[in-house]
Amino acid sequence: MVYPNKFEGFMIESQDKWSDFSKKEFDPKPFEDYDIDIQVEACGVCGSDVHTITGGWGPCNLPLCVGHEIVGKAIKVGDKVSTVKVGDRVGVGAQIWACLKCKNCKADNENYCPHQVDTYNAPYPDGTLSQGGYSSHVRAHEYFTFPIPENIASEVAAPMLCAGITTYSPLVRAKIGAGKKVAVVGIGGLGHFGVMWANALGAETYAISHTPNKEADAKKMGAKEFICSKDKDWAKPWAFTFDLILNCSDMTSEFNLPEYMSTLAVNGTFHHCGMPDKPLPQLKVPDFVPGGYAMSANHIGSRPEILSMLKLASDKGIKTWVEKIDISEKGCKEAVERVYKNDVHYRFSLVGFDKAFSRQ
Amino acid sequence: MVYPNKFEGFMIESQDKWSDFSKKEFDPKPFEDYDIDIQVEACGVCGSDVHTITGGWGPCNLPLCVGHEIVGKAIKVGDKVSTVKVGDRVGVGAQIWACLKCKNCKADNENYCPHQVDTYNAPYPDGTLSQGGYSSHVRAHEYFTFPIPENIASEVAAPMLCAGITTYSPLVRAKIGAGKKVAVVGIGGLGHFGVMWANALGAETYAISHTPNKEADAKKMGAKEFICSKDKDWAKPWAFTFDLILNCSDMTSEFNLPEYMSTLAVNGTFHHCGMPDKPLPQLKVPDFVPGGYAMSANHIGSRPEILSMLKLASDKGIKTWVEKIDISEKGCKEAVERVYKNDVHYRFSLVGFDKAFSRQ
Repeated sequence: MVYPNKFEGFMIESQDKWSDFSKKEFDPKPFEDYDIDIQVEACGVCGSDVHTITGGWGPCNLPLCVGHEIVGKAIKVGDKVSTVKVGDRVGVGAQIWACLKCKNCKADNENYCPHQVDTYNAPYPDGTLSQGGYSSHVRAHEYFTFPIPENIASEVAAPMLCAGITTYSPLVRAKIGAGKKVAVVGIGGLGHFGVMWANALGAETYAISHTPNKEADAKKMGAKEFICSKDKDWAKPWAFTFDLILNCSDMTSEFNLPEYMSTLAVNGTFHHCGMPDKPLPQLKVPDFVPGGYAMSANHIGSRPEILSMLKLASDKGIKTWVEKIDISEKGCKEAVERVYKNDVHYRFSLVGFDKAFSRQ
Repeated sequence: MVYPNKFEGFMIESQDKWSDFSKKEFDPKPFEDYDIDIQVEACGVCGSDVHTITGGWGPCNLPLCVGHEIVGKAIKVGDKVSTVKVGDRVGVGAQIWACLKCKNCKADNENYCPHQVDTYNAPYPDGTLSQGGYSSHVRAHEYFTFPIPENIASEVAAPMLCAGITTYSPLVRAKIGAGKKVAVVGIGGLGHFGVMWANALGAETYAISHTPNKEADAKKMGAKEFICSKDKDWAKPWAFTFDLILNCSDMTSEFNLPEYMSTLAVNGTFHHCGMPDKPLPQLKVPDFVPGGYAMSANHIGSRPEILSMLKLASDKGIKTWVEKIDISEKGCKEAVERVYKNDVHYRFSLVGFDKAFSRQ
């Protein structure tokens, strides 16, 4: 019974042994007036977790508890919290704090606040290190805590809070809807959301993948056609077609980018949702010139975008394709190793938190 | 008296001797119903001419007459020409033909027609090689022939037809106007237009340059402030500021691109107008992430954009900062060598064509 002084989580102690988790206690940030304590019920396993613990994105703070697709029950709310009450089912994504005062924050771009704090592996202004959701509890500022619609199960909602919003935000910022053509590259954890959202927003949606046996799944997710990028000259029939390509692949470093970009409509955008460990292939200005193309990327999404994504999912019955794994040292290990190997259809949620942690 | 069977031009015969021009005859394409013959009066000297003849962009057809910022007098018009009559002063830019039938052409994107023909160094569908405006005459399809407003001198109008439209098109496609902040990087042939257009369109315009002594000129062109990118930490005060950066530098391969991009507002765009010989610095997806940035480039602009640019210049009295050089073997040599060394404020126009060529 550690709460409320300490939280417990499955943590790694070394990037060399990145799939060796052990249950440990850690200190949450001091509780403040806008904070909410959440007893975790489900946590998605994100590619970011694997990039972080393996060192693909560089060194991390240790010991570390990852996990930033968190759903659970609010068990304590600060005096100034107005949007959540004790007992509500709520979620937290990859961002847990921002200054909420800078011009980015004031323009609904708190996901680009220069003072932002990631949900794990990041220092709060007071120096406390944030720890993620492979844990008993999470303490979050209410601005980064989202009510979960009743008709979305916790393990289904959890992966929407990072993978979901990372693909949803660029679609809505690009004003994707009826009359637009969107191609989603890479049908994995991110990409399967990309196809479902683009389709739900009304766009004509195409899936591009190296893996022919994903065709049936991609079509079930809402793709009108499946384009196999292993085929020779696959891009030629699609020249000048897509308003937006949502690149959800982790293998971009091996792409022939001009070939992908040739399928964009004039002034179309090749947008990166994932953040692979490796740099992009070498680019030249002339790669952008044949259609006046753009290339872009995003960092998750804003609170209003997360709320509208959850509403869309609730209204249209959109469900994460999720495999559940009980949280434990063994469960965490299996989950991150299988994400590393791309062996998941299409997202893991850790569940069974009540068995793993002593709770009040 | 070679016209109308042959045209004459100052041509190079070898990329090794890229500034050795000699006056030679060449064959124009066969005259067709939509064609216009133009007796050249002025031709701008474009960075593209230098990239082409030096081999920076690769091998070119030889002998070659470059020049794609052409103004002169229409001396013959085809039977189906309706927008130009004999005696009109008209201009031709970097594109001289497109199919005008494909979906890009039909959407005012003929500058991205996959069948387009460049004004020089490109084969027409019949195999004739296009030759540029360092010449007695140019034969152009009327769609790529633009009436020049009376109050713009020929040597002033000429550089607008490539450098001008290359900077104007991305500004209008990005909907730049009042309330927007634009930074122009590199105050040279392209950049000086970028500053003048952005300012004329109503944007708050900034000049970014490595060359502190361009400050006074940049402000005369319309820059509100001059930012010297040689200063340590120059970008810091401008974090999250510009809606659009128009990169007009030829030295992009040496840039710290993330530093430049850090001055973009959230979802702002770093746009390349120039096409340097060298590739871009190695990019990673995380370079785009801190503000959800985009990177893009363009290929000149469309006919409607060229017409609106010329109208803006005419209405607002915008004038190319131009140095005139008489066309001759020596004049062409001086012009391209000084453009190569960046020794021009800010654009050359070749003039004196009547002295150099025998005319009807």
